[in-house]
Amino acid sequence: MKSREEIIEIVQNELTLTNWLSEPIDLYKPIAYTMSMGGKHIRSAITLMACNLYSDNIHLALQPAIGIEVFHNFTLLHDDIMDKAETRRGKPTVHVKWNDNTAILSGDAMLIKAYQLLAKCPPENLSEILSVFSQTAIEVCEGQQYDMNFEHQDTVSEEEYIEMIRLKTAVLLAASLKIGAIIGGATPLQANALYDFGIHIGIAFQLQDDLLDVYGDPTIFGKKIGGDIICNKKTFLLIRALKNANNTQRNKIQHWMTQHPDDPTEKIVQMTSIFNETGVKQACQQRMKEHYNKALLALNKACEVEEKIVHLQKLASELMQREK
Amino acid sequence: MKSREEIIEIVQNELTLTNWLSEPIDLYKPIAYTMSMGGKHIRSAITLMACNLYSDNIHLALQPAIGIEVFHNFTLLHDDIMDKAETRRGKPTVHVKWNDNTAILSGDAMLIKAYQLLAKCPPENLSEILSVFSQTAIEVCEGQQYDMNFEHQDTVSEEEYIEMIRLKTAVLLAASLKIGAIIGGATPLQANALYDFGIHIGIAFQLQDDLLDVYGDPTIFGKKIGGDIICNKKTFLLIRALKNANNTQRNKIQHWMTQHPDDPTEKIVQMTSIFNETGVKQACQQRMKEHYNKALLALNKACEVEEKIVHLQKLASELMQREK
Repeated sequence: MKSREEIIEIVQNELTLTNWLSEPIDLYKPIAYTMSMGGKHIRSAITLMACNLYSDNIHLALQPAIGIEVFHNFTLLHDDIMDKAETRRGKPTVHVKWNDNTAILSGDAMLIKAYQLLAKCPPENLSEILSVFSQTAIEVCEGQQYDMNFEHQDTVSEEEYIEMIRLKTAVLLAASLKIGAIIGGATPLQANALYDFGIHIGIAFQLQDDLLDVYGDPTIFGKKIGGDIICNKKTFLLIRALKNANNTQRNKIQHWMTQHPDDPTEKIVQMTSIFNETGVKQACQQRMKEHYNKALLALNKACEVEEKIVHLQKLASELMQREK
Repeated sequence: MKSREEIIEIVQNELTLTNWLSEPIDLYKPIAYTMSMGGKHIRSAITLMACNLYSDNIHLALQPAIGIEVFHNFTLLHDDIMDKAETRRGKPTVHVKWNDNTAILSGDAMLIKAYQLLAKCPPENLSEILSVFSQTAIEVCEGQQYDMNFEHQDTVSEEEYIEMIRLKTAVLLAASLKIGAIIGGATPLQANALYDFGIHIGIAFQLQDDLLDVYGDPTIFGKKIGGDIICNKKTFLLIRALKNANNTQRNKIQHWMTQHPDDPTEKIVQMTSIFNETGVKQACQQRMKEHYNKALLALNKACEVEEKIVHLQKLASELMQREK
């Protein structure tokens, strides 16, 4: 049984050893750049951790795990074009450093590369893994589409929002775990339980993101506080605040949503104060807790050996308590 | 043994029966739109024709054939964004009818969908077919990158150009044939011979495109004559003309390449006249003929039963003589 630190080291070694470059260099340089940007490599790590629950031979899952990492970075690359994001992990995004066309085409090549790496799984698992991966990849696109739609939609319900973050964020974490489990030899029941663990952790993870945007410690968070408030992003907090608000509060929210001041400080202060009045921080923490509990139940179903699941339990707990 | 007409009908029926729509509709509508735009469906047709050389059960190859069609349309969709093309088959392109973001994301979903359809091949062929398909898909991206690079490159050699069209156009035709052959039960030697047939037909096909742009019959061609000349596209004709030209002719070419007149008539007349003087039409026809002959040799190697290869022979011959 390997610790998370050992597994992350295996992933990072493999990422460093992989040669992303080939001809034409203009196609592959942005890929190498993207893959060297760092990040937590959480998806590839949990693929190997899931495999390790059922098998000591986690190297069988290494190439598929890297494939999932490449896929994740592909989605970031294309999302950054769509969102016109200028930086990612403190560095210029590919479409800024190069241009939109390069970012589109290199992203396409990354998606194909992801499939090539996934296909390096044990042959007896190929069909099932491909099926899980493709289904997940399509769902991630659907999640991104819902996310873009929500920007122009007047109202978004809480359940629509949870479904969007399930698709955009949770299913890939869930699929990473399931793919690792399949390669490790899990039963379908175990693999599906681990998938559920990933879904609930993923939803809780995204809700934590919403919380940190407003209530994070600016000295730790790494990004500016209030980014979601500035752009009126329909997060769990805003959706629940609109639901809980009395007329005065609702008018105030709607007023501030029409304002795009050069200095957003006052907008952030006012919106945060309504969030406080309407108790949405607690509501969000409550919802996170529910998903966290469901995640832990699913994890126990996925593997009954307590000393084996401790690493994933610890990871889940840390994700809930993270401050950035 | 099915005729080409029967096979095209099978493909078209399947495309019509396929429901491309799902939720969120904004993601899937552009896919349905793209897939209903028509086109010759040549790639899916030759997949089935190749399968039919070795098996009567061509339905085994139908979903993969549709997958290749979806992939081809995905490349057109993303290429149209990169080339800022406003129409495709007489209709507005997706990024014009919707917007760039929709075109990027729907294209991504189409690439994933293509893999899902490919994966519906017989399970014993899955690993090999995926490997052929992914390798080909990456090469198509490489070809598109070379094509974009050539626009800003001062000189492009004839061999660089042929390599670009091999990647951008020929490998997908070749892979369509090879995938059909594999499903039909061809030996590796036969499948590879059919791949070679596709490579040479593909290169000849693209050279014919270059010729038609200059020497096509405007009443038949469907597009305006001289499009490549207007935008200084480094086609086989231009590359060879620059090679064959004397100093006067070379200066004339280089002069016209700096000109972007509102009325391009004179530029087209002058460039065509240099093409005539330098004999590049014959040179291009000669090169086409070489690839055509190599294609026919490969086809004979792929299947020795003369009455079976007649349909692919006829298709190849028609592609060489096509006027649009």
